[in-house]
Amino acid sequence: MSTLASLANHQVRLASRPTGQPTRENWEFTTEPVAEPADGGVVVKTLYLSLDPAMRGWMNEGKSYIPPVGIGEVMRAGGVGRVLASKNDQFAVGSHVMGSLGVQEVASFSADQIKRAGLARIDLRAGSETQWLNVLGMPGMTGYFGLLDVGQPRPGETVVVSGAAGAVGQTVGQLAKIKGCRVVGIAGGRAKCDWVVSELGFDACIDYKAGAVKDGLKEHCPQGVDIYFDNVGGEILDTVLTRINRKARIIICGAISQYNNTTPVQGPKNYLSLLVNRARMEGIVVFDYADRYPLAVAELAGYLKDGRMKSKEDVVDGGVQAFPETLLKLFTGENFGKLVLKVAQD
Amino acid sequence: MSTLASLANHQVRLASRPTGQPTRENWEFTTEPVAEPADGGVVVKTLYLSLDPAMRGWMNEGKSYIPPVGIGEVMRAGGVGRVLASKNDQFAVGSHVMGSLGVQEVASFSADQIKRAGLARIDLRAGSETQWLNVLGMPGMTGYFGLLDVGQPRPGETVVVSGAAGAVGQTVGQLAKIKGCRVVGIAGGRAKCDWVVSELGFDACIDYKAGAVKDGLKEHCPQGVDIYFDNVGGEILDTVLTRINRKARIIICGAISQYNNTTPVQGPKNYLSLLVNRARMEGIVVFDYADRYPLAVAELAGYLKDGRMKSKEDVVDGGVQAFPETLLKLFTGENFGKLVLKVAQD
Repeated sequence: MSTLASLANHQVRLASRPTGQPTRENWEFTTEPVAEPADGGVVVKTLYLSLDPAMRGWMNEGKSYIPPVGIGEVMRAGGVGRVLASKNDQFAVGSHVMGSLGVQEVASFSADQIKRAGLARIDLRAGSETQWLNVLGMPGMTGYFGLLDVGQPRPGETVVVSGAAGAVGQTVGQLAKIKGCRVVGIAGGRAKCDWVVSELGFDACIDYKAGAVKDGLKEHCPQGVDIYFDNVGGEILDTVLTRINRKARIIICGAISQYNNTTPVQGPKNYLSLLVNRARMEGIVVFDYADRYPLAVAELAGYLKDGRMKSKEDVVDGGVQAFPETLLKLFTGENFGKLVLKVAQD
Repeated sequence: MSTLASLANHQVRLASRPTGQPTRENWEFTTEPVAEPADGGVVVKTLYLSLDPAMRGWMNEGKSYIPPVGIGEVMRAGGVGRVLASKNDQFAVGSHVMGSLGVQEVASFSADQIKRAGLARIDLRAGSETQWLNVLGMPGMTGYFGLLDVGQPRPGETVVVSGAAGAVGQTVGQLAKIKGCRVVGIAGGRAKCDWVVSELGFDACIDYKAGAVKDGLKEHCPQGVDIYFDNVGGEILDTVLTRINRKARIIICGAISQYNNTTPVQGPKNYLSLLVNRARMEGIVVFDYADRYPLAVAELAGYLKDGRMKSKEDVVDGGVQAFPETLLKLFTGENFGKLVLKVAQD
């Protein structure tokens, strides 16, 4: 009890909505005391936070798949933590949990808020804390349901995935290999490309910083592209559209190249390739599959265990103070693997 | 026999590939004698030709869903005709046929060519000659399979169709009404809009020449848009993307606003609405459904017979000489109903 009273909860709040790339001025740092949980409530110590491209969208005003973060609110973030205090039978003190903790050192939840935050216990025997934010977390679920449900891959098909070394990309590519597909990644830089081929087992990877993506697709997808899992949008999406096969599926998961635009989003000018090829372009939002997460986690944890799937997290050990700068790594492509902010030692 | 020898077959051939809107210089007029059919062959007198937006695409070089028309070749065109001479048991002299006749007064086919041209007998009790080029022909088939197979409408959903008074649009809208949907058209001009509402029974029609399409969608689609059947592309596609519902289906049938562009096609800058709304955009090419045409024709002929479906053809009585100018009416939006060129009296 006295433990909680001694804690100062450092937080990062959204101070203003950015135009283009977020700057330090868009954030406010606050400190709050920590109170005992109410009946049915729980208090969680944040250990690791997931930093994701989608965060940039949550900072904008306007209708989207979830409401924007309000001005003055603690920035939304998924994370892994440990229960510090509990008045809820589901969450024993000391157990590990995952959910929407926010960019703060301590997250307190009422019984209602537990549900809204999607707070759930996690089993560290299935994966490490950072793997629970990667292949066993939202990115993994996004890759799993995006590829399998929307993409419906068949053995022998060619799957191309952009952001190949990123959180979603690594799950998509490895899962497509497991399902019997030819897999070609697109990533920025030799190191990332080498890694997805030599470590993750992709058939090839195109370094978009080193040469024309079009030439890479011609070389590495001699049978054309059956599935394109798009995390980036922009020119790369347009280029892949010129190489798709009949009845191809393009999964729109994100468009990181466009998120900090101050000009209008660049629409895919080659979209009529969908017509010529009777192809389809479809969006995925992972929350729609929440009732099937446990099955997907079990399958993916099995692959981690038998070594068919690997994961790489880029862990920045900086605490919540480092959140603003760390987030920007996603947009420069500086991160290598799923970007995670370490907030506290377990 | 002497009848054929006395005929001069006037033809329109592609002389050069247009940049932007086709001009008279892109065409060549030729005259050829007509020979007796070989064994298994047939000679057909062209009565009506179908003029379609897709023709503009066939004039371009490059890979598409069918090869381009070659320079010097008779321009490809679907049409209805009457058999003048036959050495094929399937086609009696005097019977009416439909198929790829080309822009010429007489079409001669070997046994092989009959198949490639998709030549088939038609029954004028099911529909008139021009209806066989409209609701019972390619536009009708495109609307039928695009709406039902790709769009999968459910009763009560809101269907928006652009080019509403055009060949495909009129089938789509009326069929969607029959299937229990709310139907809102988009067309150019008061006359077309009034007609699709009062004659075809659409719930509303937005005149894109008279005001903002966005305002029209807000007013007439208060429950949002579940299915958008797109014949036009460009700004209208982008505007509809801002009004789609979760799990919406966008059928990409054409992009007539972009076909004569000399600048790159305008990509839908609001395509990320597909992501936010878990929606899908999918292309349709009617030829994929050829084995199911007879079923669709039977269903649509039934609706024509019982009065639930009407059709309107804009018949230009100009002969093949009038082909170049008549085609342009599609791109100015001057045609009212399915554009048909009358080549000869039956």
